[in-house]
Amino acid sequence: MAKIQISLCVVCLVCSLILNLLLVSNHMHVGGKWELSWSRKAAEEGEAAAAVACSGHGRAYLDGLVVDGSPVCECNSCFEGPDCSQFSPDCIANVDGGDPLFLEPFWMQNAARSAMLVAGWHRMSYAFNNQSLMSQVLENQIRKLHTAVGNAVTQGRFIVFGTGSTQLLNAAVYALSPDNSSAPAKVVASFPFYPVYQLQTDFFRSKDFQFQGDAYLWENNSDSTSNLIEFVTAPNNPDGQLNKAVLHGPYVKAIHDHAYYWPHFTGIPAPADEDVMVFTLSKLTGHAGTRFGWALIKDEAVYQRMSTYVKLNCLGISRDAQLRAYKLLKVVMEGSGREIFEFGHATMKNRWEKLSSALSVSKRFSLQDIAPQYCTFFQTVRAASPAYAWLRCEREEDKDCYRALKKAGIIGREGTLFGTASSYVRLSLIKTQDDFDMLLHQIKKLVAEEDDMHARSTM
Amino acid sequence: MAKIQISLCVVCLVCSLILNLLLVSNHMHVGGKWELSWSRKAAEEGEAAAAVACSGHGRAYLDGLVVDGSPVCECNSCFEGPDCSQFSPDCIANVDGGDPLFLEPFWMQNAARSAMLVAGWHRMSYAFNNQSLMSQVLENQIRKLHTAVGNAVTQGRFIVFGTGSTQLLNAAVYALSPDNSSAPAKVVASFPFYPVYQLQTDFFRSKDFQFQGDAYLWENNSDSTSNLIEFVTAPNNPDGQLNKAVLHGPYVKAIHDHAYYWPHFTGIPAPADEDVMVFTLSKLTGHAGTRFGWALIKDEAVYQRMSTYVKLNCLGISRDAQLRAYKLLKVVMEGSGREIFEFGHATMKNRWEKLSSALSVSKRFSLQDIAPQYCTFFQTVRAASPAYAWLRCEREEDKDCYRALKKAGIIGREGTLFGTASSYVRLSLIKTQDDFDMLLHQIKKLVAEEDDMHARSTM
Repeated sequence: MAKIQISLCVVCLVCSLILNLLLVSNHMHVGGKWELSWSRKAAEEGEAAAAVACSGHGRAYLDGLVVDGSPVCECNSCFEGPDCSQFSPDCIANVDGGDPLFLEPFWMQNAARSAMLVAGWHRMSYAFNNQSLMSQVLENQIRKLHTAVGNAVTQGRFIVFGTGSTQLLNAAVYALSPDNSSAPAKVVASFPFYPVYQLQTDFFRSKDFQFQGDAYLWENNSDSTSNLIEFVTAPNNPDGQLNKAVLHGPYVKAIHDHAYYWPHFTGIPAPADEDVMVFTLSKLTGHAGTRFGWALIKDEAVYQRMSTYVKLNCLGISRDAQLRAYKLLKVVMEGSGREIFEFGHATMKNRWEKLSSALSVSKRFSLQDIAPQYCTFFQTVRAASPAYAWLRCEREEDKDCYRALKKAGIIGREGTLFGTASSYVRLSLIKTQDDFDMLLHQIKKLVAEEDDMHARSTM
Repeated sequence: MAKIQISLCVVCLVCSLILNLLLVSNHMHVGGKWELSWSRKAAEEGEAAAAVACSGHGRAYLDGLVVDGSPVCECNSCFEGPDCSQFSPDCIANVDGGDPLFLEPFWMQNAARSAMLVAGWHRMSYAFNNQSLMSQVLENQIRKLHTAVGNAVTQGRFIVFGTGSTQLLNAAVYALSPDNSSAPAKVVASFPFYPVYQLQTDFFRSKDFQFQGDAYLWENNSDSTSNLIEFVTAPNNPDGQLNKAVLHGPYVKAIHDHAYYWPHFTGIPAPADEDVMVFTLSKLTGHAGTRFGWALIKDEAVYQRMSTYVKLNCLGISRDAQLRAYKLLKVVMEGSGREIFEFGHATMKNRWEKLSSALSVSKRFSLQDIAPQYCTFFQTVRAASPAYAWLRCEREEDKDCYRALKKAGIIGREGTLFGTASSYVRLSLIKTQDDFDMLLHQIKKLVAEEDDMHARSTM
């Protein structure tokens, strides 16, 4: 009896000791090299917001509206309900804007690498320690990235940060305009063009520059002493073409907008090597909301003027945005430095193929042609993967293409806004998968109706 | 024997079980309600950066330069070395800029409440869920704060966010200028005035406005159909006075810059109730680097034009800056909602008293008078605590006051930049304690020399 008692006791003791060992090792493992103190609450709040279940059709944010102590799901278009699980059957495919949410899943998959903990006293000062308004480590990271991707020459270039590329586009126009000249510089872009160029230039009503429309109209202009500033967009927004400057001459300056010059959207034939090149985090990592862009500038005087613009406009770029950009770009460069581009290209190529295939049988709609391009980054000729479909309505009765699509439950962006005919509409392919799926669904329905109509008319 | 064995075994078992219990409870306690997963690495990195020892004269940041795997200390002025422990004896007191680092210790003391964990996919979109570029919860927080502090009326006011107040000052000038008028609006400010008003207005060279100097020059101007825009700064930068508008009339608009209208710097006699009021996070929480400001606007058309300015200028304010502002303002409002103001006022009052006392015996230098003010927030008449000392050199030979101070190891900001005589210099009192201590040290030395000179001259 006593023996049994002893045996039982020993078994219990051994079990208990094993449990102790497990708990101690687990405790040490959980503790890692660092026992968290003041950051723990923030980390818990961050994980709690991320853990709110939104059915894969939305997400809850740390600074979302709070109901019952928990941030609410913010649902993708066409989904609603507290957990975004309810599909709205009469939903419209809204593919108007350029929200680059196609990259959101990449960051969700890389949660641990991309999270950051911001202390309450993080960089309160106006300036960094070297009295600059710009983070030196971020600038270094940007130079490394361009070298790794091979999409821009950074040697001998100055860098200016901007609140998105939006601010830098206008800063560049200011910097390239003649000082106190009697005639304002003429700002042009080859059509179709990104509407913000004109909207900005018109709105700020400077004495020094004026929007003058299509670059091609000035190609053979005899007035060769006019100061001209040409926006050159490559790949172009809306049509994805790798535009080159139309205008040349001693009084011509160009602003090269390379927002989309990343392997997600185009082959990279060679590093861009122009005098003024503008890039943005938005179309690289997908963080449009962070509002961070940069310009690579050859000429020191232009760099100085752009820096002055940013300084007098807003005293530099938010240090929080700079910290975020730094963290994200570090993740982009980790590992092989190819992951995000492989993800981005695969996603965009897949969408373009699906849309092209759905429209291939249509006589009513056509898409832009995008030539296959050798990509020095992927070291292969690669299939098209543009950010936008530049759709044309081919029929006379669909002359107002935007309206025709709207009737069919698709909101695009009117071609007229890009300076071209109303028979064109831009469809965004870079939004969420839900947005793209809805677009594809509506397009397929439209094309099917076309067949029906054709069938009826030949009966 | 068996009994002893059993007893021993039971004792061991009980001990082991107690240890089990302790470990489990400790494990649960450490884990809190949440077992951290993907946020742990970020939290550890954040704490590791904060734990770098910088002797109380500097701090290391998450995005600082890295040496041996650890971010380096960024030292306050006058301190150097890897841990900022070496005082530079020949150091100059640099009190030129308006870096509000006097509040840094407040945030270090409130580390757990003010930390935040940002997920890699946090708010990637251009817009919030309601299609606005502005966070609704942040806007609500701002309204609550003004009501709690009693420094501005927010009822019936629109709110526009800006990249610091800097951007909003210029946005307001645009919004208040007449559209397509033949004569540009005249932009004025009563002297001494914050130099950015002029620098911005001159730099952006709009057809619609022009800087025209001192508001007082237009007080009795017969040309009463001129459009006038007056910057009214209360408390004023540089001299801390609660300025009122100088100009009135049907063609006069005012932009009320209330950057310093917080209990740190002034008594709050009543809520500000003007048509266009501009505020900034910088002088409220001390986060100049976040670049976040807001304007309270009465007129819807003005609000719309300011919103358009921000939209075309930079597509709204960084979501990272908005998240940070939201988090910080939540901490400001926690508890009694008085902590930060008590801290801020105590610090600034202490500095002002020390400086005033050091200069009280001087015949060479004088400070501005600041009338005691009843403060509705603290519900008492409170001692002066201005952000800047507006120092006057009284002697003819010190007419270039900036130079006289520089010779004595003090860098201020020249009075001429504020539109007044060179016998004035602005000294910043809102920088780090090290900066203030250095200023006080140099001032005391100067005043002591004055006594010596006086003693010599009367010998």
